[in-house]
Amino acid sequence: MLHRPDAFNARCPTRQVLDRIGDKWAVLVLILLEQETLRFNELRRRIDSISQKMLSQTLKSLERDGLISRRAFPTVPVTVEYSLTPLGRTLAGTVAALTQWAEAHIGEVEEAQRRYDRGDIAA
Amino acid sequence: MLHRPDAFNARCPTRQVLDRIGDKWAVLVLILLEQETLRFNELRRRIDSISQKMLSQTLKSLERDGLISRRAFPTVPVTVEYSLTPLGRTLAGTVAALTQWAEAHIGEVEEAQRRYDRGDIAA
Repeated sequence: MLHRPDAFNARCPTRQVLDRIGDKWAVLVLILLEQETLRFNELRRRIDSISQKMLSQTLKSLERDGLISRRAFPTVPVTVEYSLTPLGRTLAGTVAALTQWAEAHIGEVEEAQRRYDRGDIAA
Repeated sequence: MLHRPDAFNARCPTRQVLDRIGDKWAVLVLILLEQETLRFNELRRRIDSISQKMLSQTLKSLERDGLISRRAFPTVPVTVEYSLTPLGRTLAGTVAALTQWAEAHIGEVEEAQRRYDRGDIAA
């Protein structure tokens, strides 16, 4: 990169990173792995209704970005564990704050949606 | 809602909200509107390469969720201004932290991607 990173600039790689780290599946994986190392099936069980394919893609993308690391053990069948890298650890608190915001304000959001859908969009 | 909000539960509306507030276009709009009220075309100019359609959808979704408000003035052509609501203001700092993380750590992420793409995935 030659210039200061700037997510508002489409040519800055920061834009693509922002797209991935705000993804809800990535957010939920990072929150779980901040607490403990987990296997694929444990992650799948904890994140209600994530598909196997979507979890695989999410883990691969997080691994490629250096946010999680993958460790395979030569058991039968093979056991694979995921944990946060030090870089992932610097992000985990930020994405947890997104989820906390959503959980704390869901009532206000739903009330706003009802107002909007009734056509009563005055603030 | 009958239960405590829980983004890990697919039936909790928090899950859908999490999906929208982490979206990169929503994040960039919220950051700009935290600083000042802006018109549609100003937003479009500041967010490099966002399409008119994507910006319209993003603004509509943020308005429906109660995060921004829209004010139309009867000029010719009509002028429309967007600003953060008090609820949107509670979220703006959190999404700004996501972007700041991406801008601060893009070098480490790109280095991790190069390692991964070379097949050298040891942490």
